[in-house]
Amino acid sequence: MKKEIIQNVRKTVPLVHNITNYVTVNDVANILLACGGSPIMADDVAEVEEITSICGGLNINIGTLNVRTVESMILAGKKANELGHITVLDPVGAGASKLRTQTAMRLLEEVRFSVIRGNVSELKTLWGKGGETKGVDAAISDCVTEENLDEMMAFAKQMSEKTGAIIAMTGAIDIVADANKGYAVYNGKALMSKVTGTGCMLSGVVTAFCVANPKDLLDATLAAVVAMGLSGEIALERLERTVFGGTSSYRTYIIDAMSNLDDEALMEGMKVATR
Amino acid sequence: MKKEIIQNVRKTVPLVHNITNYVTVNDVANILLACGGSPIMADDVAEVEEITSICGGLNINIGTLNVRTVESMILAGKKANELGHITVLDPVGAGASKLRTQTAMRLLEEVRFSVIRGNVSELKTLWGKGGETKGVDAAISDCVTEENLDEMMAFAKQMSEKTGAIIAMTGAIDIVADANKGYAVYNGKALMSKVTGTGCMLSGVVTAFCVANPKDLLDATLAAVVAMGLSGEIALERLERTVFGGTSSYRTYIIDAMSNLDDEALMEGMKVATR
Amino acid sequence: MKKEIIQNVRKTVPLVHNITNYVTVNDVANILLACGGSPIMADDVAEVEEITSICGGLNINIGTLNVRTVESMILAGKKANELGHITVLDPVGAGASKLRTQTAMRLLEEVRFSVIRGNVSELKTLWGKGGETKGVDAAISDCVTEENLDEMMAFAKQMSEKTGAIIAMTGAIDIVADANKGYAVYNGKALMSKVTGTGCMLSGVVTAFCVANPKDLLDATLAAVVAMGLSGEIALERLERTVFGGTSSYRTYIIDAMSNLDDEALMEGMKVATR
Repeated sequence: MKKEIIQNVRKTVPLVHNITNYVTVNDVANILLACGGSPIMADDVAEVEEITSICGGLNINIGTLNVRTVESMILAGKKANELGHITVLDPVGAGASKLRTQTAMRLLEEVRFSVIRGNVSELKTLWGKGGETKGVDAAISDCVTEENLDEMMAFAKQMSEKTGAIIAMTGAIDIVADANKGYAVYNGKALMSKVTGTGCMLSGVVTAFCVANPKDLLDATLAAVVAMGLSGEIALERLERTVFGGTSSYRTYIIDAMSNLDDEALMEGMKVATR
Repeated sequence: MKKEIIQNVRKTVPLVHNITNYVTVNDVANILLACGGSPIMADDVAEVEEITSICGGLNINIGTLNVRTVESMILAGKKANELGHITVLDPVGAGASKLRTQTAMRLLEEVRFSVIRGNVSELKTLWGKGGETKGVDAAISDCVTEENLDEMMAFAKQMSEKTGAIIAMTGAIDIVADANKGYAVYNGKALMSKVTGTGCMLSGVVTAFCVANPKDLLDATLAAVVAMGLSGEIALERLERTVFGGTSSYRTYIIDAMSNLDDEALMEGMKVATR
Repeated sequence: MKKEIIQNVRKTVPLVHNITNYVTVNDVANILLACGGSPIMADDVAEVEEITSICGGLNINIGTLNVRTVESMILAGKKANELGHITVLDPVGAGASKLRTQTAMRLLEEVRFSVIRGNVSELKTLWGKGGETKGVDAAISDCVTEENLDEMMAFAKQMSEKTGAIIAMTGAIDIVADANKGYAVYNGKALMSKVTGTGCMLSGVVTAFCVANPKDLLDATLAAVVAMGLSGEIALERLERTVFGGTSSYRTYIIDAMSNLDDEALMEGMKVATR
């Protein structure tokens, strides 16, 4: 992994256009600022093309989509493609409803994505493998484990080959892969699943990291995944020293940790295996 | 009160579908995770029936409703009824506008609710008693006090009899009642009203507690009300030891306290009188 | 500056109607409560006139506007004018898209505002001076500095004369001005720009302060700007003593500081130069 990935983000302050759900949008904005980017949220068909034009990247998250915003996502995605911008898809809850699955599929057909970031259930759904989406969290049967890691890695590479996008499949073990090369990331803590939006936040960070490191998208995505996991680890250490601390403090500490992270800490803390 | 109510939540991780306002939605999601549930937010007519089908409970909150989401609420509510799911209504600001009052009335007509959770002004409005809704907070003239407690309790029981729903009327003193039995809850702190969304959060928690304890809805609702109040108490103790602490730390501490709460603490801390 | 401005807010608990973006809406609600006001959010055409009627002030923020909410803003603004209520405009991202610029212009034509609060890029855009809006943050070339302070102050006074609104132009140095009198405010910290929504929050606070001090709108606006900056200063001091603290803790501390602020601290901490 290159050593100046975060530095590049903080130096260039990449502007990221987010069309995202209203549940975790504030956290996405704050972690984008924390990692060195600059967020803008806009979802009306009348302005999404213009807004995405002034940005370097587009982060599409289908978390609380509605008929109005689906069209905005398509329009913005096409414009971003036209301009050669970074595009990230977060297919939140794909598999939980036809609207979500079909919207994610339609986005994959009409827009080229630089990165797709989702949990195993969501990605399996998009792949037609019948993931067992239970709401917005991955089903237990859909976890990446040491036992199925090779299989999951192969799936991620295959999906990358088919879509042309880097795949970031996150869970207990995270997988980052393109068609040729894959990484297993062991950073992160289970408690992160008790904070809403850690996945959404990661997708925002992935976008910023890729915009600031356009020649190394695989490394940039890997760095973002490691950065998020590492922030969760640093935050948990701090939480364990906090009397009466709980999951809401943990949320705050995760974003705090991201705001303090630099490339040195990233290199030192990364727990990555190449596959 | 049964002794395993929270344990049941944490063991079964009930999935709760929320159609709720965009002001406090993130807090609702985080406190649902904190208490042991799993939140999903979805409000488009095209998916609400499917989403509610995979959940155990539906939490409808009219806080920032619009013409589009009103239909979603009705559709989701009917589907939840059809499936025998837990349904909770939070009539935020009923009385503040015709749209809110009429939507709440229409929901009461077309959907059967397991629990209705609101402040006195909101519930009086629904009852046609002319509550003096001042925005989204109860009017001072609408407070439950020791003086009017018997009268308020009778009102809650009557409302429960008429609607078939358990009534959770919250304020300085909270009332939880079905047609036959009522409780006055003395947990909670006044400072909670300086944090937006404590009512919305409670409605989320009520839904999760009821889904996980389907045979004891009155106890589950009472436990949720006590749990929220107790979290406010534990959080205030912590806040008083925090140098320069204020209302935003208090919000964090409330959710933290919920994430650490167990049945033993609940039983020990509850301040409940049967009426 | 009058000495009882904050006291008046806490005593009268002004109800503020917010039509605002879904990114920072929760922070706006919480800081309104923290400063002593009471927030209500409502954006549907079917209810905005009624909701604004029961409030003392209306805060319009175009942060994530859409075609539906634009009409609500106009309707609510006209009703607020009719009732003589305080009206505040926050033209978030004006200049970043035609929709935002035109909506802001249309609002200025159809609604009289008591206060307009924006960054230099946004206000220059409204003035037809071609601000260089880079997303939702002011362009660097658009900063108020000691060098251009006189020019910027003249611009603010001119804009106030033309619009009839008090101008609060915020950045490294803040300017508060009506047609005749202007203040340069040196409170605040650069790190505040790493927390999303400090501008949106300020617009909410401005509204509450003006509603509670209707005879001294210039002073009330100035006090709100100072209060926000001072909260950022107090929060930074606290952050510097927090081990592993970062930008998310900073957000919490800012709102905490606002909840603890009183007129004495305001008078003592204000760094204001009259121009």
